[in-house]
Amino acid sequence: MSQTEQQFDISEHPSRIHHVAVVVRDLDAALGFYRDTLRLELDEVMPIDSDGVKIGFLPVGESSIELVQPTRDDTGVARFLANRGEGFHHVCLEVADLAAELNRLAEQGIELIDAAPRRGAEGPVAFIHPRSCHGVLVELIEAPGGPAWQSLGYA
Amino acid sequence: MSQTEQQFDISEHPSRIHHVAVVVRDLDAALGFYRDTLRLELDEVMPIDSDGVKIGFLPVGESSIELVQPTRDDTGVARFLANRGEGFHHVCLEVADLAAELNRLAEQGIELIDAAPRRGAEGPVAFIHPRSCHGVLVELIEAPGGPAWQSLGYA
Repeated sequence: MSQTEQQFDISEHPSRIHHVAVVVRDLDAALGFYRDTLRLELDEVMPIDSDGVKIGFLPVGESSIELVQPTRDDTGVARFLANRGEGFHHVCLEVADLAAELNRLAEQGIELIDAAPRRGAEGPVAFIHPRSCHGVLVELIEAPGGPAWQSLGYA
Repeated sequence: MSQTEQQFDISEHPSRIHHVAVVVRDLDAALGFYRDTLRLELDEVMPIDSDGVKIGFLPVGESSIELVQPTRDDTGVARFLANRGEGFHHVCLEVADLAAELNRLAEQGIELIDAAPRRGAEGPVAFIHPRSCHGVLVELIEAPGGPAWQSLGYA
């Protein structure tokens, strides 16, 4: 599973934590802690009707805390909340070329939830299964201007 | 629970995600994914005998992924691993003045695990109980040069 010197290009490793996502029962109640008490700024609240969630991003340095409230009962996030309660959901790392990274991970036997980049609220994204990441659900997002932004039709 | 305008000083909000900590059964096995496959650099591996853990920091942008392997069975982290398996353990946010922040949080009714800064491997730290953070264990660390660095005797 280890890289050979030849394959390794340090410039292409993940460049930052894009966000840490927290599933909450009630976004407004959670803002009472993360915005009002902890004093993070709230960037915006977006309903993502296609995913059955409402999300709020609170920037902190080059990253954000993403609060995710399910708005329907028939989604994975709603089942996560019902089964495990509020808490950490996933961490998202930014990469330069998402399709290339997914191909590389698949070749190494990593279990991908999304084999190809798909449209996310903030850019092209894909999830890696927690079974391949020692229990952590890892999302990858492509940095602005990367090749998947064009292929997925972002403006 | 919301701040009055008077109390609010935006310059004192958390400045970055310092690290995201992941509890793993075997640090070397976990490096097989986080270092060798995901291509994060390994900064260093430190045994923290007083806490019964071995930790590895993998920088990503201004943050790190911290891998934590319990080395004894009688610690909270070992019980976490036994009960919940590998996965996300806590997120650590950097603040400018940790003692002042803890006092402010306590005044607002936030449940602190550590009421005062204590020595951590990377600087003065304190944990906030997940009950006050919508299910997430949140650690705070004081930025280098802050007042607790001196009071806790860091060089």
